[in-house]
Amino acid sequence: MSQQPKVVSVSDLPINEAKQYQDAEGNERLWEVAQRKTRKTSGIDAVAILAILKSKTNAFPPSTVVVEQYRPPIDKFIVELPAGLIDEGESPEQAAIRELEEETGYKADSVIESSPVLVSDPGMTNANMKLVVLNVMLENKLEIPDQKLESGEFIVRRVIELKNLLEELKVYDRKGYILDARLHHLAAGYAMALNG
Amino acid sequence: MSQQPKVVSVSDLPINEAKQYQDAEGNERLWEVAQRKTRKTSGIDAVAILAILKSKTNAFPPSTVVVEQYRPPIDKFIVELPAGLIDEGESPEQAAIRELEEETGYKADSVIESSPVLVSDPGMTNANMKLVVLNVMLENKLEIPDQKLESGEFIVRRVIELKNLLEELKVYDRKGYILDARLHHLAAGYAMALNG
Repeated sequence: MSQQPKVVSVSDLPINEAKQYQDAEGNERLWEVAQRKTRKTSGIDAVAILAILKSKTNAFPPSTVVVEQYRPPIDKFIVELPAGLIDEGESPEQAAIRELEEETGYKADSVIESSPVLVSDPGMTNANMKLVVLNVMLENKLEIPDQKLESGEFIVRRVIELKNLLEELKVYDRKGYILDARLHHLAAGYAMALNG
Repeated sequence: MSQQPKVVSVSDLPINEAKQYQDAEGNERLWEVAQRKTRKTSGIDAVAILAILKSKTNAFPPSTVVVEQYRPPIDKFIVELPAGLIDEGESPEQAAIRELEEETGYKADSVIESSPVLVSDPGMTNANMKLVVLNVMLENKLEIPDQKLESGEFIVRRVIELKNLLEELKVYDRKGYILDARLHHLAAGYAMALNG
């Protein structure tokens, strides 16, 4: 990693769609929609992964792992849950286990929960996803395994105690990182329940 | 409301953009991006609202309000937090108070918290938002005020106890509604902290 990534030029592309729809009063209206062209037969574009890292000896408090990466649509570094597109023939849970290991090096022991199908920004795109919660049991102390990134992937991972997640996201924001809305909402809900 | 809304036709539109960017190794790469064309001088597209409904006499447990609406990009009914685009000259907090009253009828007493700028799907679009938490104190029992919807808006609101939020979202999913990812992540985080 030798330099800061950056957007160098922007040009228009003919790939969006307009959907003509009929509203509840029977009026025909037009809506512009952005769509991924990569959806496989699972019908679900992507998974995000909430990994719950625990120690068999309680050597560290329950934690999770987030990733930092440059995202061209925003032209900034974003803090997100580990995530990725679902390959052909994969279940969402298989994709979650694979992506967690690729992006963070952590191997999941089991699937704790898989969410219903979720839509990330339903006023704008048809993009959909599942949140998969994975259990990662570590023998003792917090090991930091090697990532298995593909060529051209530049992803930094960071382990954060669950109870500090929202505060750590606020620190990222103050440093100029941009927060993924889904990660932030999860952290906000967690903090809200903890603080009554 | 006399009929089910539905998509009646789909056509391509020339409105997406491609960003040419330079990665951390100096390679030039292309990334396709969907962008809203409506962003105002605030620099933030939209707000979502978590309203905390409380009774001055503890006549009901702390609750929130979600909205159900047909979304053409998905061609289904989506369950979301109340939300809307920020008008020119408005702060995110002003937009949140206005949108909450329009979509649900509830008038906020105060702003509890406003999130950093969040991105909803940073691998795909540059769309951004803030989550604004609003305090709604009710005199006694749970009043259901009139909505103030614009012509062409068809939005159903529903009050849900905070501690039941995730379970109620699962019921929506089983009924065929699609869940907004941000609302689901907030509910999942809340339930996770409650259940240890």
